Amino acid sequence: MEDTIKWQNGSKAEGAKVLILDQRLLPHDVRYIECADYGQVVDCIKTLAIRGAPAIGIAAAMGMALAANAISASDVNEFTAELQPAIEALLKSRPTAVNIKWAAERIMRLIEDGQPVSAIKDKIVHEGIEILNEDIEINKAIGQVGAQFIKDGATVLTHCNAGALATGGYGTATAPIRMAIAQGKRVSVIADETRPILQGARLTAWELMQDNIDVTLIPDNAAGELMRRGMIDLCIVGTDRTVRNGDVANKIGTYSVAVLAKENNIPFYVAAPLSSIDFDIEKGDDIPI
Amino acid sequence: MEDTIKWQNGSKAEGAKVLILDQRLLPHDVRYIECADYGQVVDCIKTLAIRGAPAIGIAAAMGMALAANAISASDVNEFTAELQPAIEALLKSRPTAVNIKWAAERIMRLIEDGQPVSAIKDKIVHEGIEILNEDIEINKAIGQVGAQFIKDGATVLTHCNAGALATGGYGTATAPIRMAIAQGKRVSVIADETRPILQGARLTAWELMQDNIDVTLIPDNAAGELMRRGMIDLCIVGTDRTVRNGDVANKIGTYSVAVLAKENNIPFYVAAPLSSIDFDIEKGDDIPI
Repeated sequence: MEDTIKWQNGSKAEGAKVLILDQRLLPHDVRYIECADYGQVVDCIKTLAIRGAPAIGIAAAMGMALAANAISASDVNEFTAELQPAIEALLKSRPTAVNIKWAAERIMRLIEDGQPVSAIKDKIVHEGIEILNEDIEINKAIGQVGAQFIKDGATVLTHCNAGALATGGYGTATAPIRMAIAQGKRVSVIADETRPILQGARLTAWELMQDNIDVTLIPDNAAGELMRRGMIDLCIVGTDRTVRNGDVANKIGTYSVAVLAKENNIPFYVAAPLSSIDFDIEKGDDIPI
Repeated sequence: MEDTIKWQNGSKAEGAKVLILDQRLLPHDVRYIECADYGQVVDCIKTLAIRGAPAIGIAAAMGMALAANAISASDVNEFTAELQPAIEALLKSRPTAVNIKWAAERIMRLIEDGQPVSAIKDKIVHEGIEILNEDIEINKAIGQVGAQFIKDGATVLTHCNAGALATGGYGTATAPIRMAIAQGKRVSVIADETRPILQGARLTAWELMQDNIDVTLIPDNAAGELMRRGMIDLCIVGTDRTVRNGDVANKIGTYSVAVLAKENNIPFYVAAPLSSIDFDIEKGDDIPI
């Protein structure tokens, strides 16, 4: 499948670009937007050219890297001050996803006094690429954990797109599906079309078809009836933000799927990468069970 | 509001037409299809130019009247035999709604030996018009009963279109809303858009706006979240078919609305006219409570 986002020009600062697959054109056109500055990345996030909490976290980090590259100051304080507007603009580009905040914190931690600005820039660029690579690894780990819940022959319902296109690749909600298939299980997917802007129809169905995964598209309001008829074995969705009590914020309709699954005794899983979590496990906050 | 269906040319047999509002063109175009023979009525039902269980019951009865008019036989048995293909075709035009069967039974009861065919034809035409008028009266009666459940200031969620356009006029699910407003209550409506073919968006929202009733259109998958936030006071839907145990068959998604209402302790009403009922109360079958 096509990459959701990539850093062009290795880790070199000069002439680097962020290539973002324009998801507004899918499934009809596969076209990349070349972002040479952070403003273009902000636009991509705001206009939903890239969406999905993990993916926009990566985009934000790479946008910060483009901004860092463009700064000519050689003093660390000056550099930090000049980077600030980019970070602010990226933080504001999409208020629902916690991932941008998380990316900004990772980038800011790299700025230390007493280092040459050029070294800081290199670290920031490297961090952007690293966040992308880590994301794919995290998703594969979600897949390893999640695949155990998918039996051979299972049908999985998913809502919206928490697939490869919502992440650096492999997806969160789709990771257990991809991993189960890699393990040799037969898995079918039912994708809610996800009104109003049809991420399920345009993105999830498309990306699964790209990878020859059996997928059936349904109107959102058919999910309940399919559950009632025993045609869904489990539900897996993604999350934009996960809070201490285990609540998640996610695309409109996720709550409805959860209630319908509960009514029909169908397991309902949320694939929550660490980047979606809005509390600090390192500071001793417990992960809710 | 425009009529859903009307019989043109009084009760005269010659040159009579059934005018059907083409609901496929709504809300953009208001255009009537002139049906001069029953085959055109069959097409209107099959292609969803007219839909809604009560409305297609009326259309079927009027189609049978057009068919009866076109028969030249003067012998009652011959007349009955020649009417049969029209009844069969209309019965097959939409298998989910029980109303066509119910209309056919009413029409067939009018054919008695020993009467002149011309008198039978007149009775059939009269019956078609009568079914339309009765339907509106039934809906107003539903409104009288249902309005008591709608408090001043209430917000009512409805799914699909069980409004004036689904009936001879006034609607089934919309009847309590219209009646409550006529009684001076302030009522707001939330209309599910009702994918895949958007009867809520194209029809319910349109017809309520025509009558200056406050209506807000939502994607189907937003209904649950609005319920959870306490923004819906009650749900009212229509029914294609109602069976002995109280189960109803209705548009895809009705079940989901019902489950979400139950989860949120929101009253859920089905406006079921007698014509939707698939068991014989006259023969002693009890109406389920």
